[in-house]
Amino acid sequence: MFTKSFLKKIAEKEGVPLSYIEQKIKEGKIIIPLNKKKNIKNITAIGEGLKIKINTNIGTSTENTDIKDEITKLNTAVKFGSNTVMDLSTGGDLRKIRKAIIKNSSVPVGTVPIYEVAKEVERRRGSFDRIKKDDILEIIEAQAQEGVDFFTIHAGILKEALNILENRKRIGGIVSRGGAIIARWMYVNNKENPLYENFDAIVDIVRKYRVTISLGDALRPGAIADSTDKLQLLELFTLSKLVKKCRRKGVQVMVEGPGHIKLDEIGMNVILQKKICGGIPFYILGPLPTDIASGYDHITSAIGSTIAAMHGADFLCVVTPAEHLRHPSIKDIQEGVIASKIAAHSVDVLRFEDEWKRDLLLSKYRSQRRWEEVFKLTLDKDKAKNYRKSEKTSLNDICTMCGKFCSLKIIDSCNLLK
Amino acid sequence: MFTKSFLKKIAEKEGVPLSYIEQKIKEGKIIIPLNKKKNIKNITAIGEGLKIKINTNIGTSTENTDIKDEITKLNTAVKFGSNTVMDLSTGGDLRKIRKAIIKNSSVPVGTVPIYEVAKEVERRRGSFDRIKKDDILEIIEAQAQEGVDFFTIHAGILKEALNILENRKRIGGIVSRGGAIIARWMYVNNKENPLYENFDAIVDIVRKYRVTISLGDALRPGAIADSTDKLQLLELFTLSKLVKKCRRKGVQVMVEGPGHIKLDEIGMNVILQKKICGGIPFYILGPLPTDIASGYDHITSAIGSTIAAMHGADFLCVVTPAEHLRHPSIKDIQEGVIASKIAAHSVDVLRFEDEWKRDLLLSKYRSQRRWEEVFKLTLDKDKAKNYRKSEKTSLNDICTMCGKFCSLKIIDSCNLLK
Repeated sequence: MFTKSFLKKIAEKEGVPLSYIEQKIKEGKIIIPLNKKKNIKNITAIGEGLKIKINTNIGTSTENTDIKDEITKLNTAVKFGSNTVMDLSTGGDLRKIRKAIIKNSSVPVGTVPIYEVAKEVERRRGSFDRIKKDDILEIIEAQAQEGVDFFTIHAGILKEALNILENRKRIGGIVSRGGAIIARWMYVNNKENPLYENFDAIVDIVRKYRVTISLGDALRPGAIADSTDKLQLLELFTLSKLVKKCRRKGVQVMVEGPGHIKLDEIGMNVILQKKICGGIPFYILGPLPTDIASGYDHITSAIGSTIAAMHGADFLCVVTPAEHLRHPSIKDIQEGVIASKIAAHSVDVLRFEDEWKRDLLLSKYRSQRRWEEVFKLTLDKDKAKNYRKSEKTSLNDICTMCGKFCSLKIIDSCNLLK
Repeated sequence: MFTKSFLKKIAEKEGVPLSYIEQKIKEGKIIIPLNKKKNIKNITAIGEGLKIKINTNIGTSTENTDIKDEITKLNTAVKFGSNTVMDLSTGGDLRKIRKAIIKNSSVPVGTVPIYEVAKEVERRRGSFDRIKKDDILEIIEAQAQEGVDFFTIHAGILKEALNILENRKRIGGIVSRGGAIIARWMYVNNKENPLYENFDAIVDIVRKYRVTISLGDALRPGAIADSTDKLQLLELFTLSKLVKKCRRKGVQVMVEGPGHIKLDEIGMNVILQKKICGGIPFYILGPLPTDIASGYDHITSAIGSTIAAMHGADFLCVVTPAEHLRHPSIKDIQEGVIASKIAAHSVDVLRFEDEWKRDLLLSKYRSQRRWEEVFKLTLDKDKAKNYRKSEKTSLNDICTMCGKFCSLKIIDSCNLLK
């Protein structure tokens, strides 16, 4: 699937042996989402034994359709360390926006093709209830041709789930956009999920372009009260079967996970997914261990995703402070990416020498109050610098927090550590 | 120590049986920091089996001495759910500031008396190197008389630690202000820690006023590279002996903990402290699982303190985004308190019915898009409201994130959950 020289570069970048990468790719435990037609600067490998990667969702909504804003979000996400982006656009000229994002992105780009399918069918035939097999395959092929690197495919929500939904009335209902489109389609047409029914055809198309499949969790809990419920688990079992189909046809695949999860169920959710799906990469949205932090869900997500990453999650989806409230602004994207980087790094620092050295060096400089060197090593130099500059002090080597009672300066003053 | 009717109110507030509170207070596993002379609105019990509590540090620094700002910080902290505050003032008229904070606070107030001792001795005799036993006892008694509810006493750093410090050169050195003052004093005077040497006399004073002792961790790691090192552990063992002294004399006591801790050592640090100190309340600052997030350490701390609380930490000290950079602003305090509340609540929601119901209800309202009801249940109504209001949409029941493709609205539209 990839040449040896290509994999050698990946292995070097990740700081692992080439043979390790080769073996794990063979086992499906490491993937490299990269469309055959693409040549990008920041190639990303995701999976077991590698650094934790993060994805940022960008893209228009039906209410905000400015392409320029989305390109700025793309650049902001990459600047602060996002390893991939997903274009989740649903407003404006989707093809034009996607092409602009692909053109401007130095990192892999993912999409959820069912969004364009729904929009296009609405335009052509008035309602996405009229989606047909060919609409799906046509748009998937077109997006693959354009150079999309990975697709979220919500093939795991089945009619059986609708019955359970009708009877049990989940607290959060369905919070996946793709999932809701498919659920409505199935309910109105009284037919099985078309992404599931045509999964083999989809796999055959993406295979030609080496697009990676990300199996979407249409039934992810949207409230901690729904955490690890029957619907979520049934979908996970279905996804595990679809994983096998992808693997048999040589298509790279990962599985998406929730969502809102109670704190004490986060670890087991990751372990369960890894166990059931044969150790393939786990891409997790959040998880959020509480529902009450609207406006601060980047923090809630940082907590949940750190614990998920500790237990083996490989790929973290950024949650911004705007989650549940509005289409994210550029600043929201920045805050979300940094929160996810903190989560990823808190785990990587335990596993990788270069990550460890960054903390070590920063703390050494901090204890010597070499501020400029500290700033260079922080996740967001500008914010750190501006915070420090915002306060005047008569002593230029300390900060205003402890002022003259700076513990480091007091210790320096008595030569104890000299 | 407390009357039955007083404890009955506490038990009701905490949602636990009176007999439980009585038993755990007897065992030292629950404390109620409340000066004998005080009558405040928001009394707080801390310890095993109770909701996680949080403390906010406020107070002037040598560079910022405005009392009004600190009172606003106090009100902000209490508004967003801080259960106690500590006045860590080191600039301006300390007594005047402290009295203003005590007067205006509806929650218990803690201090670190050695700060005032150091400042006062500098004023009287030019340098805090000249601190004498009587300076310490005098100021501790004066502060107790004023109504301070708990004192941090850095009695656990001993001369032995200085030798280790000299030889091993810790990365982060000493990052406790009180610890640095004591360390310098010991080094310059070549004498044992005066807080340790006079600990019995200190206990006798605080006992008269029912002030709670919080055993400070002068040697807490200030870098993850120093996490769980010999210095930290030696101090913890010393503190465990001092716990026994307090318990024998009927003085309420808790132990403070780090600081910067590697992610995979957070759980064991809490378990170790609980084990060694006989299950008494653990008051933890952070911990931060990485050093590289200057400007975002409220997030780093939320991650660390959630894991600490999962493992038994009882009392979380707020870390603001200003940590390591500047004296915190009012907005920094707000962000820090909310981050800590998210941490505390993520654990409490698993343990307390009323906390659980808050998430349940919010998510139910969210799925029905009853925005006003959602806002009432969030941690910061105003931020959530402003986020939503910042974006115009033609559809008043959705937000701009998903726009017309709102998953909840799509499901509603097909009567699946009706």
